[in-house]
Amino acid sequence: MNSKAIQDLYPENLAHCYGCGKNNPQGYQLKTYLIDDETIAHFTPEEKYTAIPGSVYGGLIASLLDCHGTGSAAAFMCKQEHIALEEGPIPIRCVTASLKVDFKALTPMGVPLELKGRLRSIEGRKIWVDMTLSANGILCATAEILAIQLKE
Amino acid sequence: MNSKAIQDLYPENLAHCYGCGKNNPQGYQLKTYLIDDETIAHFTPEEKYTAIPGSVYGGLIASLLDCHGTGSAAAFMCKQEHIALEEGPIPIRCVTASLKVDFKALTPMGVPLELKGRLRSIEGRKIWVDMTLSANGILCATAEILAIQLKE
Repeated sequence: MNSKAIQDLYPENLAHCYGCGKNNPQGYQLKTYLIDDETIAHFTPEEKYTAIPGSVYGGLIASLLDCHGTGSAAAFMCKQEHIALEEGPIPIRCVTASLKVDFKALTPMGVPLELKGRLRSIEGRKIWVDMTLSANGILCATAEILAIQLKE
Repeated sequence: MNSKAIQDLYPENLAHCYGCGKNNPQGYQLKTYLIDDETIAHFTPEEKYTAIPGSVYGGLIASLLDCHGTGSAAAFMCKQEHIALEEGPIPIRCVTASLKVDFKALTPMGVPLELKGRLRSIEGRKIWVDMTLSANGILCATAEILAIQLKE
C-alpha cells in the first residue's frame, strides 16, 4: 500500500459524499487506494442491500463504482501532477460526468467485493477510468467512468 | 394514472430489492407507474444522500434510475404482452445487464426528483429503455438501460 485512502485526503468541505466521504458517518465510507498503476477498494455489503435474494443490489454496485471511479480519477491525476497521496487536503476533487456499468454475473451477498481501477486517459480536466468489481475472484461487473476535475 | 406501481406487482419472492422492493422496509421503495407510453416515478432524497454539499449523491441517482429502468422494462413488456398492471403477481421481472448514466447538472437537494422512461426497443427478453431525471423542471441526468427479463 503506497498511499492513504484518496477519499481521506479530500478537502474537509468536499468530504460529505454518501458513498465515500469521511465526514458522512451514515454513508458507505468507501476507501480507494492507489497501488502502482492500479486503484483498489474493498466493501462488504450489509444484507439489506439485496437485489433478488442472495445477490447484491445493482444500485449499490453502481454507487461503489461511482465513488471508486471519482477517487481513482483524483488519484491518477495526482500521480500525473506529482502530488503525493500522503497528507491532505489534496487540491484535486472529481465529479462524475458519465458512468456505465455492465453487469456480468449476479454479485453474491456476504463476501467482500473487490473494486479495481485503471487509468484510460487524461485530457485536461477529463479523466477516463476503467473498473472491475469482483467477488470470490469472479468478475461481477465492469464499468467505465468519465470524471471531471472540479475547478478550484 | 392507469396502473398500480409496477414494483408492487412483482412476485413476493422477487420483491426484496433495496431500491424498489415492497418487501424491503429499509430500502428506497421507489414506485414506477406506466402512463400511456411513458413511465414515471418520484423520489425526494434525505439529506444524508449528499454528494458535495447541496447536491444529491450520484450513486443514489444511478440507483433510482436502475430501479426505474428495470421497472419500466417490466411495464413495457407487460404492455406488449397485453398483461394488465392491475393485479399481481405479474409474470415478468427484469434485471439490469447494462446501465449508463450521464450527469447533466448537479441535482439539487431537498426537492422531489422526477424520473421518466420511454421504451426504445424490445428484442426477445432484452428491453432497452431511455430515461431522464429532473428536479425543479431542470434535466439533471439522462440514462439508458438494457434490462433482461428473468426466465420463469
